[in-house]
Amino acid sequence: MINERIDDLMRDGLKLIQNTDIFCFGMDAVLLSTYAMAGKKDRVLDMGTGNGIIPVLMQSKNPGSTYSALEIQEGSAQLARRNVELNHLEDRISVVKGDIKEASTIFGEASFNVVTSNPPYMNENHGIVNPDSAKAIARHELLCSLDDVIREASRCLKSKGKMYMVHRPNRLVDIFDTMRKYHLEPKRMRLVYPYVNKAANMVLIEAVKGGNSQLIVEEPLIVYKTDGTYTDALLKMYE
Amino acid sequence: MINERIDDLMRDGLKLIQNTDIFCFGMDAVLLSTYAMAGKKDRVLDMGTGNGIIPVLMQSKNPGSTYSALEIQEGSAQLARRNVELNHLEDRISVVKGDIKEASTIFGEASFNVVTSNPPYMNENHGIVNPDSAKAIARHELLCSLDDVIREASRCLKSKGKMYMVHRPNRLVDIFDTMRKYHLEPKRMRLVYPYVNKAANMVLIEAVKGGNSQLIVEEPLIVYKTDGTYTDALLKMYE
Repeated sequence: MINERIDDLMRDGLKLIQNTDIFCFGMDAVLLSTYAMAGKKDRVLDMGTGNGIIPVLMQSKNPGSTYSALEIQEGSAQLARRNVELNHLEDRISVVKGDIKEASTIFGEASFNVVTSNPPYMNENHGIVNPDSAKAIARHELLCSLDDVIREASRCLKSKGKMYMVHRPNRLVDIFDTMRKYHLEPKRMRLVYPYVNKAANMVLIEAVKGGNSQLIVEEPLIVYKTDGTYTDALLKMYE
Repeated sequence: MINERIDDLMRDGLKLIQNTDIFCFGMDAVLLSTYAMAGKKDRVLDMGTGNGIIPVLMQSKNPGSTYSALEIQEGSAQLARRNVELNHLEDRISVVKGDIKEASTIFGEASFNVVTSNPPYMNENHGIVNPDSAKAIARHELLCSLDDVIREASRCLKSKGKMYMVHRPNRLVDIFDTMRKYHLEPKRMRLVYPYVNKAANMVLIEAVKGGNSQLIVEEPLIVYKTDGTYTDALLKMYE
C-alpha cells in the first residue's frame, strides 16, 4: 500500500502529493518559503528538497526566478518531480537526484543567487532504530552534517548571494560559527516562538556571502495566541 | 556645578547617586541584574561597573554572594564607592579602580563564579567629538573592545563559571564567535523587543565556561504593550 495523499496548498491553486511513509512538510518549510526572497532573474537552489514543497511555494511569490531542487532519496526526488508536473512548473523547477555534499560539483561553484535549505535538524543519531529509513534521513544528520550544508551553500553561491535556512534555535551558535567559517555572514534572523511566553522552537536566517558583520534580529514570529488560534503574523506567512 | 541626583531604586529601600554628566543607568543594567544569578557563596565580578548599579541591585536578589566591581574611570569609581556606602553594602561589594583589559591580572585567573558586564556597545568610534568624555568611554569601545571583555571574563572565571552580558543584537554573531574563541559557550539567551512587532534592541546572554553546545532561546521579553504601557513580563524584571 502506498500512503499518498494530495494536499491543496491554498496558494494560487497549488497542490502537493505527499507520502506519509517518507516525510510530510511542516510549518518550517512554509515559513522558509515565505521568508526567502529571489529577484526576477535569480537562480535558486533548494538543498534537500524532499517532495519539493519549498520551490513549489516559493516560485509563486517570486516571479521570474528559476529553481534547482536537489534531493538524495530516490523516492522523494520522484515525488518532487511529480509535484512539479502536477503544478505545470517544468519551466521553473528542475529536480536533481544527488548528494548535498557534492552540490558545488553537481551545479558548479558560484552558480546560484540564492540557496534555500530546511536541512536535517538533529545531530544526535544514537538510538535511531532504522538509520536507512526515509524519515530518519530527512530528520537526522545521517547523510549530511550542518557543516556540509553550509559549506556547499557557500560554494554554490555567487558573491553577495543569499542563503536562507530554517533550523532549531538550540543549534544557533553552531550555525553562526559554521556560516562565518564559510564566509556567509548572518544578516537577518527571525525567531519563531510557539506562544509569547514560551522558548523559541524555530529560527529563520538570511546570510550573505561576503557580507559585513551586522545582524538584524527581526520582530518575533509568535505562532499561537493564548486561546490557541493562530496569530495574524503567522497567518500572513501562509498567505 | 555637579549634576548629581539620588534615585530610589524601588527595591529593598536601595538608593543610587547618579551624575548626569557621566552616565545614568538604563533599562539594560536593570534587566541584566535580574537575568544574572549567583549562588549563596559565589564571588561575582562586574566588569565596567559605572556607578555600581548592577552589583547594588543584584546583591538584593542573591543573598550571600559577594561582589568586586571594576571601573576604569575615577569619577565613576568614586560614585560607585559612595553608592556602596549609602546602601551599607561594604561587606558585600568592593569597588576597584582598574582596567578591564587587566582584570585577570588584578584579580587572578579562575577567581570568580560569575562575571557580569554591560560593556560599551558601539564599535564605530569615528566622529566622536570628545573621545575623553566619560559618556563616550561608557558607550563606545574606546578603552576596551568586545574581545577584551570576553577574554578577561573567561580568564577570571572558574571552570563551569557563568558570564552574563547585556548587549545589542546587531553584534550577536561577533559575541557568539568571541565567546567560543575563549571557551565560553552561550547556553541561554533572551531577546528584548520594544514592541511585539518591532526588531529586538537588546539581548541578554548566559555563557558557561567549558559548557557544551546547546542554546536555549528563551521566551521573548517584550517591553511595551501596543498602548505604550509596560508589559507584565517587563514589570516582573523590575520587581
